[in-house]
Amino acid sequence: MPELRKDPISERWVIISSDRTRRPGDFVRESVPALRSDRYCPFCTGQEHKTPPELLAHRNGSSPNGPGWSLRVVPSKFPVLRVEGELEREGEGLFDRMVGIGAHEIVVESPDHVLNMTELPESGIEQVLWAFRERVRDLRNDPRLRYVMIFRNYGESAGAHLEHSHSQLIALPVVPKRVQEELEVAGRYFASKERCIFCDLIRQEMKAGVRVVTETDQFVVVEPYAARFPFETWILPKKHQSHFEDAGALQLNNLAWVLKTTLRKLERALERPPYNLLVHTAPVQEACSLHYHWHIEIIPKLTRVAGFEWGTGFYINPTPPEESAKFLRDAGLG
Amino acid sequence: MPELRKDPISERWVIISSDRTRRPGDFVRESVPALRSDRYCPFCTGQEHKTPPELLAHRNGSSPNGPGWSLRVVPSKFPVLRVEGELEREGEGLFDRMVGIGAHEIVVESPDHVLNMTELPESGIEQVLWAFRERVRDLRNDPRLRYVMIFRNYGESAGAHLEHSHSQLIALPVVPKRVQEELEVAGRYFASKERCIFCDLIRQEMKAGVRVVTETDQFVVVEPYAARFPFETWILPKKHQSHFEDAGALQLNNLAWVLKTTLRKLERALERPPYNLLVHTAPVQEACSLHYHWHIEIIPKLTRVAGFEWGTGFYINPTPPEESAKFLRDAGLG
Repeated sequence: MPELRKDPISERWVIISSDRTRRPGDFVRESVPALRSDRYCPFCTGQEHKTPPELLAHRNGSSPNGPGWSLRVVPSKFPVLRVEGELEREGEGLFDRMVGIGAHEIVVESPDHVLNMTELPESGIEQVLWAFRERVRDLRNDPRLRYVMIFRNYGESAGAHLEHSHSQLIALPVVPKRVQEELEVAGRYFASKERCIFCDLIRQEMKAGVRVVTETDQFVVVEPYAARFPFETWILPKKHQSHFEDAGALQLNNLAWVLKTTLRKLERALERPPYNLLVHTAPVQEACSLHYHWHIEIIPKLTRVAGFEWGTGFYINPTPPEESAKFLRDAGLG
Repeated sequence: MPELRKDPISERWVIISSDRTRRPGDFVRESVPALRSDRYCPFCTGQEHKTPPELLAHRNGSSPNGPGWSLRVVPSKFPVLRVEGELEREGEGLFDRMVGIGAHEIVVESPDHVLNMTELPESGIEQVLWAFRERVRDLRNDPRLRYVMIFRNYGESAGAHLEHSHSQLIALPVVPKRVQEELEVAGRYFASKERCIFCDLIRQEMKAGVRVVTETDQFVVVEPYAARFPFETWILPKKHQSHFEDAGALQLNNLAWVLKTTLRKLERALERPPYNLLVHTAPVQEACSLHYHWHIEIIPKLTRVAGFEWGTGFYINPTPPEESAKFLRDAGLG
């Protein structure tokens, strides 16, 4: 029988159709091409003049905006929001609008034309995580910016326009609705139980074990109970922490290993699937909280989202998370 | 400058990037093929034995489950939920689950192998609308079923698995979260103003005119103020009505014309785009309400939803609705 499951954090119901479970081989996979295209790449070393001037770079004494770097952060050439201007707000009858103030930055993860984060050494991933942390800490100094979304699109069907390994940050003048909802649910839970809902979830998952993919002393990787998508994967810090940008050196070092291992497991089980990676974290202008708990969500693009999902916010997942967790555990690597 | 706009009903913010407006010609369109594939089609006349026995058919004296029909409703051969069984509910620590009770039905819109609703005569579309109404009125007799989602996926990239023109109904044992949210916002609005938020929206849009595509005595077609997607289009009944299944003969007759005209306008402006069509309506077990207002949402698939959208519920729309409304008005046809 199919089963309906409710995610305790987003309060969204999902249909897990265990009748016709789909295993890794059953998806119409659009593997991301392993071969590099020879198209012009503005992110490669030597092409620094093709991007706006850098905001941050890891350099060994070389001059800004030239070669000799291992990581660069640049403003997006096609930003969805801009830093310049006044944050004007206005009503128009029923409608509300404001000027699109914000920031849109690109983290170029390597000077070489590598395609996925998994091709970086662990130290390279660690340096990307430090860049996220540093950029968020800088952006939060602008009081107009209330939320910083850190994400990574891998593969064209996951929305990546350039194949060179990169991540993005978008800073917003409002807290997005999905984040607001998570905060509210977690806040209500804390008010009634004096415990963080994520900490409780981690404890329960570690005890049950069936949905756990990997575990280190700092992190646990799980397939969530009410996964929306096949092989949806969450990485949660074991220690309670509301803001990603408060993660310390030990955590980021460990996270680099966890992230690389998890992405490689997905690559191995699903043959280089396109994916979106999202950092869920508390709003930058809010103080550390006891109820929110940052984490990473990875969503491989294996199924299409159709009318039913758009209309209802109700997802149909043909692979029970217990099964996908087993596949990922069996994929080896850690 | 890009603009942030808030949809008053879903309370979701959208970035309208007016800097680099994308016009119909700018999208990487995946037009739905106009040529019929010669693959085996279980929905064509003569293939009635390939589907489960029909639940409803418009026949002129012919026997059930054979040829001689103009429309058939059959249970899905691969249902996401099933009618049989007990609606058992269970908790498991933090998690909630229930048995996947529900219904999943297919409305085969024509005995001929036509591909889109626009190829049907208006009377054919009207008969589809009557079938929706009749099936919802039947399904609501099962008190376990709390919501009936009516939708249509057109084109493979919009999730259609078979090209033969069809719609679907999924009946659910819970009210989906997105619907619940709309109901709550509309309920709060009514509590404070004693007016329906949708009725107010219709009045404001008709007065402004800039986002109106077509208008008849019964319906208004608009590009919503905070459209998530380019050419997102809503069809709203002018008369206040909470439930689609309460629509009368005059309304359904008029809606057939409105629907055909709107879909043809989209076809003309965007060259047969894949799309999802969704009927938003009040929960079937609830009495008529003064605050909810059924409507249809059509979402052409022109852009990809990527990490940012998944993480935030925040959409980036490169075509201001005022522009898309103009394109659709200029596409002629009504």
